[in-house]
Amino acid sequence: SVNPDLASERQTASFSVEKLTALLDGGTEQTRIRRAVVEAIESDPVFSRENQYFQTQNERYEAAVRKAVHLQKKMHEMGWTENGPEYKYIYRALSGDVAFLLHRVFMRSISVLGSDKQIAKWIPLATQHKLIGSYAQTELGHGTYLQGLETTAVFDTANQEFILNTPKISAMKWWPGDMGRSATHTVVFAQLYIHGKCYGIHPFIVQIRSLQDHSLCPGVIAGDIGPKMNFEHIDNGYLLLKNVRIPRENMLSKFCEVRPDGTYVRQGSQKINYFTMTTVRISLIADEVLTPLMKACTIAIRYSVVRRQSKLKPGEQEAKILDYQTQQEKVLPQLATAYAFHFTNDYLQELFNRGYREIQRKNFDMLPELHALSSGFKAVITQHCTAGVEICLRACGGHGYSLLSGLPSLYTKILASCIYEGENTILLLQTARFLIKCFMAASAGQPVPPSVTYLAAVKHGKCPAKNKLDFLSPDIYTEAYQHVAVRLTSSTAAKLQDLIQSGVKKHDAWNQCTVQLVQAAKAHCHYIAVKNFAETVEKLETKAGIQKIMKHLCDLFALHGIFSNTGAFLHDGYTSAAQMDMVTASYLDLLAVIRKDAVPLVDAFDFTDKSLNSALGSSDGQVYQRLYQWAQRSPTNQMSPAYEKYLKPLLHNTLSKL
Amino acid sequence: SVNPDLASERQTASFSVEKLTALLDGGTEQTRIRRAVVEAIESDPVFSRENQYFQTQNERYEAAVRKAVHLQKKMHEMGWTENGPEYKYIYRALSGDVAFLLHRVFMRSISVLGSDKQIAKWIPLATQHKLIGSYAQTELGHGTYLQGLETTAVFDTANQEFILNTPKISAMKWWPGDMGRSATHTVVFAQLYIHGKCYGIHPFIVQIRSLQDHSLCPGVIAGDIGPKMNFEHIDNGYLLLKNVRIPRENMLSKFCEVRPDGTYVRQGSQKINYFTMTTVRISLIADEVLTPLMKACTIAIRYSVVRRQSKLKPGEQEAKILDYQTQQEKVLPQLATAYAFHFTNDYLQELFNRGYREIQRKNFDMLPELHALSSGFKAVITQHCTAGVEICLRACGGHGYSLLSGLPSLYTKILASCIYEGENTILLLQTARFLIKCFMAASAGQPVPPSVTYLAAVKHGKCPAKNKLDFLSPDIYTEAYQHVAVRLTSSTAAKLQDLIQSGVKKHDAWNQCTVQLVQAAKAHCHYIAVKNFAETVEKLETKAGIQKIMKHLCDLFALHGIFSNTGAFLHDGYTSAAQMDMVTASYLDLLAVIRKDAVPLVDAFDFTDKSLNSALGSSDGQVYQRLYQWAQRSPTNQMSPAYEKYLKPLLHNTLSKL
Repeated sequence: SVNPDLASERQTASFSVEKLTALLDGGTEQTRIRRAVVEAIESDPVFSRENQYFQTQNERYEAAVRKAVHLQKKMHEMGWTENGPEYKYIYRALSGDVAFLLHRVFMRSISVLGSDKQIAKWIPLATQHKLIGSYAQTELGHGTYLQGLETTAVFDTANQEFILNTPKISAMKWWPGDMGRSATHTVVFAQLYIHGKCYGIHPFIVQIRSLQDHSLCPGVIAGDIGPKMNFEHIDNGYLLLKNVRIPRENMLSKFCEVRPDGTYVRQGSQKINYFTMTTVRISLIADEVLTPLMKACTIAIRYSVVRRQSKLKPGEQEAKILDYQTQQEKVLPQLATAYAFHFTNDYLQELFNRGYREIQRKNFDMLPELHALSSGFKAVITQHCTAGVEICLRACGGHGYSLLSGLPSLYTKILASCIYEGENTILLLQTARFLIKCFMAASAGQPVPPSVTYLAAVKHGKCPAKNKLDFLSPDIYTEAYQHVAVRLTSSTAAKLQDLIQSGVKKHDAWNQCTVQLVQAAKAHCHYIAVKNFAETVEKLETKAGIQKIMKHLCDLFALHGIFSNTGAFLHDGYTSAAQMDMVTASYLDLLAVIRKDAVPLVDAFDFTDKSLNSALGSSDGQVYQRLYQWAQRSPTNQMSPAYEKYLKPLLHNTLSKL
Repeated sequence: SVNPDLASERQTASFSVEKLTALLDGGTEQTRIRRAVVEAIESDPVFSRENQYFQTQNERYEAAVRKAVHLQKKMHEMGWTENGPEYKYIYRALSGDVAFLLHRVFMRSISVLGSDKQIAKWIPLATQHKLIGSYAQTELGHGTYLQGLETTAVFDTANQEFILNTPKISAMKWWPGDMGRSATHTVVFAQLYIHGKCYGIHPFIVQIRSLQDHSLCPGVIAGDIGPKMNFEHIDNGYLLLKNVRIPRENMLSKFCEVRPDGTYVRQGSQKINYFTMTTVRISLIADEVLTPLMKACTIAIRYSVVRRQSKLKPGEQEAKILDYQTQQEKVLPQLATAYAFHFTNDYLQELFNRGYREIQRKNFDMLPELHALSSGFKAVITQHCTAGVEICLRACGGHGYSLLSGLPSLYTKILASCIYEGENTILLLQTARFLIKCFMAASAGQPVPPSVTYLAAVKHGKCPAKNKLDFLSPDIYTEAYQHVAVRLTSSTAAKLQDLIQSGVKKHDAWNQCTVQLVQAAKAHCHYIAVKNFAETVEKLETKAGIQKIMKHLCDLFALHGIFSNTGAFLHDGYTSAAQMDMVTASYLDLLAVIRKDAVPLVDAFDFTDKSLNSALGSSDGQVYQRLYQWAQRSPTNQMSPAYEKYLKPLLHNTLSKL
């Protein structure tokens, strides 16, 4: 039976939840396929995550391997293929709790970086799981800056082999997933040396474990890097190589080849490869970043209508905590953020599909823009969504702190997304570099890519809003965001110029501007996200109340951004103090409006109870029963040896005789 | 041997590290005592935390119990007593990793709430550990709002007993520390009923486990609430009572007594009790909030001078990441925050000592102010320090994410401080209520407590700064903070009045202002923290460079607060856009100045390597060696059954025959 406090929230939805779900999925057919996949996965006990919060790192690893192996069988049974429509829902249905994800990266890197011959040899072996692959790039002392990698691969002409070495401890491979315990092979990135000359970083296929008994190969030292904040199910590993010899054919050689005599040959353009790395940043947004925030919102909002605390009106019963303005102000902007970035992701996917088509036609013009957008949005979306999950966790008070709420594991996992695939600050500076370049070009009247043409149109006007309702006009707020993005880019460009003109060296000047450059890059992405949300709402069908509620969320996303960052909008007087008060008033009004639809808005995300895996967020709202029943199953409720060993002697006072 | 990149940082300290340590400790004698305690604890292997990151919740609990029992012996050996000068350093030296903390709360509540007779009976039993106590207040469905607690205690005149019951699942006691597995007794807070009439919440001593065999007493269901984000060493518990009978004498009766015939008698003033609860919020700041931030700063800053990444200048070696402005902007403001709140804590301690003396003289005038300050600062300091630890964690990239960095456990533990002892938003609203009341009083010309007299002096001036150096003047920035605090309080008071005058009911009007009330309360505390830091610096001795570096940190703390919240200062034109640009310039300049002393500034916190328990933060900077050696000892580097069970069949292709 559904908790009546939760049930009542569903009776007053202003829109069709089912229609909104279909919109998020991209159509009713997609919803049907997704649900079928979820049903098949969740009804299979091998994929259960029920005991996850009680398991050790070792148990999590073993379960993930078991699931990965079982998944092969399941896909065969269900007739799912890697190119089928179901495939993209499998990982989501498993909540990513499965091993061998790097095996796919191993295969992709061979497909992208390998010659036709290499592809023909290795891909079938990998597909049939005759080996387990990993991808060894990051080193203990080297991350983002690839040129700094220290592992070496020296070509030995006499034996037609590469000799791989880890020259010092900071050169150990560190972090590669599936490498700590599972992988038999890996793609190692190393500095290539031929006849004593360094040719820079290249990829090599290296076998690290025996295919017979899984023992480490000669010269290989590998293991697990130990406990982490999350990802207990993944055996992130270390790898140390001592004179490990591999045949010449194992250097992936689509773009660069070493001939038998040691001649080094470059061939073709690496731009497609560069594009592939860029798309990885976009591809992780849906599953690794948006889904956790959507889950956190579902949990926090359902809990907030079930939990009652203190009295809002004297004499009445205790109030649902979602009726407090401060609670609304915590969780509802996160809900708006989840929707906003869902649509941003659609926009980016479309842009990258277009980019891919252009690149296949050998037109690489879009690359710099795509790189800037993928870098900036990877950083901005991971940052906002991570902060959002943490806010949801804290908004649930003590119960949010229990692993059984599901929120801690969502937080500790999404946090990693701010670091992997490019640390956020470094990515934002890449975007900023593009912005500065485009701003200079635009100022000089040169053409710039579509997403930055607005930089050319520096306006010195004022925000035209006259009352608080004007701030519910997308034109008004989108223009305000645009103004801020232009101002931050242009003022930082000016500071950079001034420093250089005053004699500061270019690299020093750049470093002295980086805090402000990061601000400019964030403002650029925020502007595009707001603009895209507003344009998406514009195009939605007006039926079934969907457009109306999405418009509210768009307004909330935009006004929350202004309210949280008023200085940027007030700075040059574009927005006046009186207008800022209007923003605040409209923003607070919106909270009360969206609060009414809060539960239907999270119901539309369509998470099953099993996928939420949360005592606080289940669809029936029976929070307290679930917490109690679940806690009773905790291993901490088994007998502890601590009583006989320590408590009994203490209580029976042997201690005082010490 | 010390990593030369770290060693070089220590050679250029602008001040005496040892003198700064003594300042932080409150004198060289305190430093000596603290170090002696740390030495005694850390040289004893029973107290080792070396394997902490590898242990399960059960292992952590057992270790904490073992340490608690061993501590009794240790104190006896060392001649340390609960009233001695060493006592306050023990908990810090153990990093809080010890059981039976609630036993002390149990004893304190009996001392404060019990009659002389009750104290005489129970305190010796507790002191000699003939029982293990806990404190059962929070319920599954009830936290902050004590009046909402549902546990009942019905007086049975015939048997001279109270009958305790948990009437429904939301009334279960939930969270009490030491109760899940250890405690034999607890103080239960329950609604008192006599002859069918409810007299509200009262405290009762209830035995929950046998003193003979530790089995649960009849009618008692208790256990552990399961896994949490941290505090694995504590057995936070649940408790369900079914007609549990306790003698009449077990109701703690210093303030309220039930006579044998059921007559209910109130006696004395509970104000001292109220004061005690208030001081708990202050007492946790040093150990639970400041120490974790100081540790996080130590780890992140030492790592930031050892880690090198990318090139700052073309042709040079890779740069220390602390030389990047963006990295400085992450970690150095956290360092300034740690120092700022250290001095705030000194200020609060002094204020509360004064308050205590007044209260003993039956003068309760300071109570409302002390309550407002303890509530507001508990919220503001936990909030800032938690955010600071998270920033430090993220500033260490991938390695910060490893438990071996020490940062994840600092974060997951300090996060709880935002929730326990009063959820932060609720506390800030308590402070805001005080501010609004005082603002109204001050406006009407009535006297108000010292910390809020500034509210009477609403000035409409402008910030007088003429260039960026003016913003290094404490008068300039302290006044700016004051202006913002007054503006936010007065404008919210005005909004509240307007709403009420326009016919909105008082409680609704209050709710509609809460987001802004929270802002006002934060601004008030931030102002006091800045003002206190500036005044503290003023009074420091000018020798040994201490005052100079503290002045830099004070400036950084103040300007970081403005830079991060420019809108509040720009809003009514008190600070102009041009002045805000000066703030930014001075702020960024300061980063480069403080960067030079960053390592000495964290060295002054004087953490031993054992207390940091971090591969990244050790005093010799041998980061990579430590990570590698430590990881090798992880239980995940033992043989996993996953190979025989899953990997072998997969690789040997039994799968493809499925």
